[in-house]
Amino acid sequence: MDNWQEYDNAPEDLVLSSRIRLARNINGIPFPNKLDVASGKEVVNNIEKAFYTSDEMRENYKSIYLWNNDSLQNSKYFEQHLISPDLINHKDAAAFILNKDETISIMLNEEDHIRLQAITGGLNLPECYKMANKLDDKLDENLDFAFDEKLGYITACPTNLGTGMRASAMVHLPALTMNNQMNEILKVLTQVGMTIRGLYGEGTKAQGNLYQISNQITLGYTEEDIITNLEVVVRQVINQEQATRESLIKAYKYDIEDKIYRSIGILKNAVLLNSTECLDLLSNVRMGVELGIIKDVKKGTLNSLIIDTQPSTLQSKLNTKLNEKERDINRARIVKEAFNKV
Amino acid sequence: MDNWQEYDNAPEDLVLSSRIRLARNINGIPFPNKLDVASGKEVVNNIEKAFYTSDEMRENYKSIYLWNNDSLQNSKYFEQHLISPDLINHKDAAAFILNKDETISIMLNEEDHIRLQAITGGLNLPECYKMANKLDDKLDENLDFAFDEKLGYITACPTNLGTGMRASAMVHLPALTMNNQMNEILKVLTQVGMTIRGLYGEGTKAQGNLYQISNQITLGYTEEDIITNLEVVVRQVINQEQATRESLIKAYKYDIEDKIYRSIGILKNAVLLNSTECLDLLSNVRMGVELGIIKDVKKGTLNSLIIDTQPSTLQSKLNTKLNEKERDINRARIVKEAFNKV
Repeated sequence: MDNWQEYDNAPEDLVLSSRIRLARNINGIPFPNKLDVASGKEVVNNIEKAFYTSDEMRENYKSIYLWNNDSLQNSKYFEQHLISPDLINHKDAAAFILNKDETISIMLNEEDHIRLQAITGGLNLPECYKMANKLDDKLDENLDFAFDEKLGYITACPTNLGTGMRASAMVHLPALTMNNQMNEILKVLTQVGMTIRGLYGEGTKAQGNLYQISNQITLGYTEEDIITNLEVVVRQVINQEQATRESLIKAYKYDIEDKIYRSIGILKNAVLLNSTECLDLLSNVRMGVELGIIKDVKKGTLNSLIIDTQPSTLQSKLNTKLNEKERDINRARIVKEAFNKV
Repeated sequence: MDNWQEYDNAPEDLVLSSRIRLARNINGIPFPNKLDVASGKEVVNNIEKAFYTSDEMRENYKSIYLWNNDSLQNSKYFEQHLISPDLINHKDAAAFILNKDETISIMLNEEDHIRLQAITGGLNLPECYKMANKLDDKLDENLDFAFDEKLGYITACPTNLGTGMRASAMVHLPALTMNNQMNEILKVLTQVGMTIRGLYGEGTKAQGNLYQISNQITLGYTEEDIITNLEVVVRQVINQEQATRESLIKAYKYDIEDKIYRSIGILKNAVLLNSTECLDLLSNVRMGVELGIIKDVKKGTLNSLIIDTQPSTLQSKLNTKLNEKERDINRARIVKEAFNKV
């Protein structure tokens, strides 16, 4: 498992990260929405007991209790893709267990008691599944999961019944976006039980041309089927993106190179950068790297900047509240520093 | 006398160049508009005879005959501010005499038989006048200038009667332009017998926030009066520009710095640059140098790029005809090279 932010093994790869998420609930205990704070914290405590069973586990993992954090810290974890808005909604009794390289995040008392996530760089869902499965087995040893012979794992929302598994991949699709093909792709994906969303999931706009493709249906398929199908679909979408890029480059070679190089020029020099423009410029540079036009910028730098320039992460790192203008100034500074290190 | 393109003695100075132009005609010979080609060339020949009277003159000056050039070459000289569109209009019998450092250009058979120009860097009209006067005296020794006791020098257009002198200064006024104050300034200047025009004189739009301030009235004033008045007016306009800059910086410090630094970033990285954008970006960087924000860019580099990125100069240097896209590509390349030398 690789931390996706640091992952830059394959510059031409359009997949930033793969993620497997398993939803689990404990038998006989109401779903988090129905729990008061004390009972919620007891659930957290019981899961921790089932999880931290050895020194090795205690060394490699730590619990973060949302009720101990201010909202800036929690929203930073959200921006880092480690927790969901729903976990923050349950913050009075919610927590998550995180490993050192941040490839595992187990949310406690989100919509379900347990939302186990395994995240890696590039397109590698089997690897994520192997890891998630291992940890799931471990929890299963000491916890009594709600499970029905017919329905599979019981979850708060029926869309997660069955495997309780969601597989997703974050992909970079600037050419399809530029060419207004994303709605068409969403339609096709919906027909095969999948969906495509923006950088921050459900209901968020695609910023920086980054999209998450994931399965919608969890019931009636095995985990292996879901993973195989998703990888096939992701590869198809990527092929479409590549074909669109090729035809755009054929028609507008200089314009595309101009866009890519100007973006680097602005990122290296701007004094003010708002979040939307920043993600757009990073996307242009990423495309330059993927196309082999830009050779001296690492994917890892671009990945980290996507996260580090988010409003809460930015403020959290500087340990201070900032107004919009101050955020724009500091975002520009952080980006400039990262690019000048290159 | 300094070549204005290379002049970067005073980074904070808003005046790029000063120019004195004297209009003279030869007694008893019709104005160029009334001359046929053979008679026009005879006039050129007679003036040359009066001018090249020593080895020193022949060494330091050369004649360029417009009828020998293709239109690209002639329009390159226009872009370099060495000749006027009117000289090109008379190209069948027109020429100009140029010195080595291109501070002197004597147009022959423009609207008048002789249009003697002396150009230097910065605000230094007396220096230009001294030089123009010296050459005028020299021509006067061997030619019979049309002169009237009451009207002074006789010229084709009555607006040049009297001294036949036009004094002008090229100034950089981005803040007044941004603040929409230029129309107001034009009104005030007109009231005191002066005018303000774009980079390429009469009827041209101000590109790159560059303007030429010049006297309109030549009759009834001495040369010294014209020069003194113009310098006073130029200084007043500059003071207004400086005041406007100060108030803009007070209100929009970061936005202005952002604009300046982004401009550098784009100039250093763009793959396509059209002429208008190029001049605008160069203007932003120039303002950065004038304000002391940018320390590692020389005014000389900016001055040369204004000229070198003009369409005909660009094509003339590459010795080939280019379409618009090719010009944009080569303009971007030239700019990038100049900035990366810095």
